[in-house]
Amino acid sequence: MVWYDVISLSSLRSQRPGVTETVENTAVLLAKRPEGLPTPEDFSVVTRPLTSRDAGKIRCETIFLSLDPYMRSVIAGNHLGHGIAPGEVVPGEVIAKVTESEHPDWPLNTLVRCEGGWQQFSDQTPDSLARVPSQLSRPSLALSILGMPGLTAWAGMVDLAKVGPGDVVVIPAAVGGVGAMAAQLARRAGATTVAITSGAEKRRIATETLGYDHCIDRIEEDLGTALERIAPDGVSVYFDLVGDPTLTTVATHLAVGGRVVLCGLIQDYNGNHKTTGPHPGLWITKRATVSGLVVYDYEPQRQAFEAEFVPLAEAGELTANEEFHDGLDAAPAAFCRLMRGLNSGKVVVRLVD
Amino acid sequence: MVWYDVISLSSLRSQRPGVTETVENTAVLLAKRPEGLPTPEDFSVVTRPLTSRDAGKIRCETIFLSLDPYMRSVIAGNHLGHGIAPGEVVPGEVIAKVTESEHPDWPLNTLVRCEGGWQQFSDQTPDSLARVPSQLSRPSLALSILGMPGLTAWAGMVDLAKVGPGDVVVIPAAVGGVGAMAAQLARRAGATTVAITSGAEKRRIATETLGYDHCIDRIEEDLGTALERIAPDGVSVYFDLVGDPTLTTVATHLAVGGRVVLCGLIQDYNGNHKTTGPHPGLWITKRATVSGLVVYDYEPQRQAFEAEFVPLAEAGELTANEEFHDGLDAAPAAFCRLMRGLNSGKVVVRLVD
Repeated sequence: MVWYDVISLSSLRSQRPGVTETVENTAVLLAKRPEGLPTPEDFSVVTRPLTSRDAGKIRCETIFLSLDPYMRSVIAGNHLGHGIAPGEVVPGEVIAKVTESEHPDWPLNTLVRCEGGWQQFSDQTPDSLARVPSQLSRPSLALSILGMPGLTAWAGMVDLAKVGPGDVVVIPAAVGGVGAMAAQLARRAGATTVAITSGAEKRRIATETLGYDHCIDRIEEDLGTALERIAPDGVSVYFDLVGDPTLTTVATHLAVGGRVVLCGLIQDYNGNHKTTGPHPGLWITKRATVSGLVVYDYEPQRQAFEAEFVPLAEAGELTANEEFHDGLDAAPAAFCRLMRGLNSGKVVVRLVD
Repeated sequence: MVWYDVISLSSLRSQRPGVTETVENTAVLLAKRPEGLPTPEDFSVVTRPLTSRDAGKIRCETIFLSLDPYMRSVIAGNHLGHGIAPGEVVPGEVIAKVTESEHPDWPLNTLVRCEGGWQQFSDQTPDSLARVPSQLSRPSLALSILGMPGLTAWAGMVDLAKVGPGDVVVIPAAVGGVGAMAAQLARRAGATTVAITSGAEKRRIATETLGYDHCIDRIEEDLGTALERIAPDGVSVYFDLVGDPTLTTVATHLAVGGRVVLCGLIQDYNGNHKTTGPHPGLWITKRATVSGLVVYDYEPQRQAFEAEFVPLAEAGELTANEEFHDGLDAAPAAFCRLMRGLNSGKVVVRLVD
């Protein structure tokens, strides 16, 4: 069940009364730590009585749940020192609506972004909530090109790689949340963009929907050969979201002075910790600048990011590419698709009818 | 035969007549490509008749020959796309004296720096010569802290790592040509310097002669444990001259936001191409900036570098640490010492009596 459509903000706002009458909370728990690629059996969907709300907490009802590759390392127990154990609710960023609140800053029906997790309701402290930009007519964008993936793309492309005219920018996971925004930022800066993806549908999305200048099918083509053809003078910017073997192949085709942003390691998230990086001699020969990116460091820039790009999105100058799945029951399978690279866009689970 | 002394410039200038009367040229040839660590048997010293000088060429007599680790990859045939074959004169940078010349810019007895190779005489085109700074009372410094190793140190420490107050800078091969200058640049910038070296004599040179704040003996101590003790808040700058396993160990102890300059791979030069770099996930977690450095890119900055640091050296504000070997016959063994990390300073072969 996949849609490329989105419900309107007005329908969200009119749907429910100010106080939750529901007494149950559906949640997805980690059943066991996945070995290698996760399967739906690694998760369990449970419906439990809603616990009572602590004083000062704000009850939020999830509307959109974001699924992201970093979650694979969270459920492995090793995401930047954090992780969860079997039996716990799987964490995740959500767009939610305030359903119970006494806090003057967070009145009922406010749309918020928070770490609600894979569940219907979560109780939040005021300081754990962020407002969804009020002018945003598609609130799910606050989880994709205008949210964490978009901020990641901005941090990598603009802050670290300083992409500019003449750059040849290669982006793997090209039609995912980060890739979609990274490509658009690079093109807006005057660069040539090269997608790495797989399958006819995703190739079409890359070139037709997202406007990549070139697209390499990593299954049907040899990546090195394709890069030689498309970028005979070398790749000047590589936004790594996947790790090896793609990383080393692109590094081999890097232009002298090329910039590489290291941001994701999907191979490793799936537990293949035997991957290594390119030989340091390659970075020396290429006079490369390699930067590690963790998007959490960019929270202070989020407001400026939203101020710049929300209006552009509203003006139709940015394209989002979201893959919607309906209902929490669909979340485990959608996540497993994502970790197999089968998603055709930023993966969002939609919880409202 | 090791000296920590140097002949004076005036003795050099008075030694020989303006025109070479010698008819023979002693040279060190590559006998065979070394397997792994080089041995003296990989080289052969020959004395052959001097060939006639082509019109327009300038004959130069070598005074000092610089021995550097990069030569290991030159004789392996794979230094940045260059290399030599057995039977050829081993290349190397030298300080030489013009002994035959009709060129007005390069009169007899001019001290020059050029790619003279491991031989007594070489004939050079005018544009392949660089003048040794005339105010330099120790011309060998133009091969060490004020030459290519010094420029390498400047490029890594100042241009790439932008070392500054509060930085904790770790330097392996700490008492070599690059390390000696890198440490002094870092200390002048207000950083704390940590040497990695081995043996009592080199530890003494590191702390007493070169002024490192801390010194780790890589044989007698566990590097990781020592870094935890010396740099509990992490290493902010690492100037890599050696590759793995040191690179990965220091990377593991990098501070968040640390900078790593990749510049040398002594393990690889010795033919151990199985080394790899740190896992990319480590660079991500540390938000590292990793830069590849090739000193040849910095030739345009050499004049400014000399203008800044030659006066400081003459004023006694910079310490050089040269290990002299006498005569071309000594070059193969001296190079083999260097490639085993047994040198106690920048290795220079002295050809004049």
